[in-house]
Amino acid sequence: MSDKKVHSVKRAVEVAARAFAFRKFNEVTVAEISQAAQCSTTTIYAIFGNKEGLFLEAMTHLLQTQVPEVRLNNRSALCRLVSFAEARVRSLSSPVVRGAVRAISGQIDTARTLVDHLAEQQCGKVIAILEPQIDACVQHNLLRPLGSDNLAYAIMAVTAYEPIVFGMLYGNDQSVDITGVLRKAFTPLVTPSGEVMLNQLLDEGPAYGVLSLASRNPPQHYQSTGRA
Amino acid sequence: MSDKKVHSVKRAVEVAARAFAFRKFNEVTVAEISQAAQCSTTTIYAIFGNKEGLFLEAMTHLLQTQVPEVRLNNRSALCRLVSFAEARVRSLSSPVVRGAVRAISGQIDTARTLVDHLAEQQCGKVIAILEPQIDACVQHNLLRPLGSDNLAYAIMAVTAYEPIVFGMLYGNDQSVDITGVLRKAFTPLVTPSGEVMLNQLLDEGPAYGVLSLASRNPPQHYQSTGRA
Repeated sequence: MSDKKVHSVKRAVEVAARAFAFRKFNEVTVAEISQAAQCSTTTIYAIFGNKEGLFLEAMTHLLQTQVPEVRLNNRSALCRLVSFAEARVRSLSSPVVRGAVRAISGQIDTARTLVDHLAEQQCGKVIAILEPQIDACVQHNLLRPLGSDNLAYAIMAVTAYEPIVFGMLYGNDQSVDITGVLRKAFTPLVTPSGEVMLNQLLDEGPAYGVLSLASRNPPQHYQSTGRA
Repeated sequence: MSDKKVHSVKRAVEVAARAFAFRKFNEVTVAEISQAAQCSTTTIYAIFGNKEGLFLEAMTHLLQTQVPEVRLNNRSALCRLVSFAEARVRSLSSPVVRGAVRAISGQIDTARTLVDHLAEQQCGKVIAILEPQIDACVQHNLLRPLGSDNLAYAIMAVTAYEPIVFGMLYGNDQSVDITGVLRKAFTPLVTPSGEVMLNQLLDEGPAYGVLSLASRNPPQHYQSTGRA
């Protein structure tokens, strides 16, 4: 494939990702994606087979760019965990991820391979990334020794609940209190000395590298309601 | 309205609830609901206005019948909380509730009033029902004094995560390990003496009135994988 064609296919995937995240599957056409991305419908059908194939590739692309990472340059393992959790709350609260979750849910029948991929990300890879941080926190007496699995699950569940429930039920209308969610997620898990550090991290945020994305790049689509 | 008409309208709502929970909104017609429920389309349109109105009433009906309650006849406040959590995991894992969540999510634009109703149920009424049990558990040194709000949120989040994520991503294919979810939900929240009681409740289940629905009425659509 020529460089030009590679680029036009990439554009088609990006255009499709936003289209499917913000509108219903039935309302999006391959013709409009083709036009907006300057990529011929012939190429789109040759590469993705059909609209369902383009949808899967677009959602995979979208969610891959939205998976939060553990940033290892942060000061402590607890700080890394809280930063990861913050990025996760922020990502799941974003209109584009909420749209993608709704879109995938609406196309369950055709999304099987994508779902397997997501399951690996959500339940396998992400927890594998979290576990070294969790184990370090337990070793330093910052998290309670509740078992890596239970700790990872609690962090994943509590950081997902409000963003996903609000996103599923309210579309993009309802804002998520990011600091409040982080506090709810970690308060049951920390030791007394972990609690002191957690409160410092959440109160002083940017100085610790937590909530720093917020200060560097204020999000437009949601805001803290200060309910913490 | 005659008794006969009241009954036929009620049937229409029940038929519509299952239809919308298991099939796409666009694929369900008022004509088929009318026929299956023996309720004329004239009556349906007169009462609900349009298909969207019938959808809202059907989803409201469905979810109202699925809200878990705190059963006050159980032995202890912790047992009541665990029973509530069990009913919640079971309800959210059921094909009909999973279908309803997907259906509502797919019709966000028309489901505003229903969503407000759900928000009250989820975030207001249910937490108000839970709080007396939570406070009693804290007073009896079974739950840690983490704040009623945080405790209620953690229970709601962790019991919802696996059923909803599995439901959204896998449709009805993936079973939920009910005992495992309950253990993950309560382990971070209990005191040492609460942990002893929790383990008794989960291990001996039916004798304590917890997991008793399972033994009395084995669910057909999902099963414990024994991962606990």
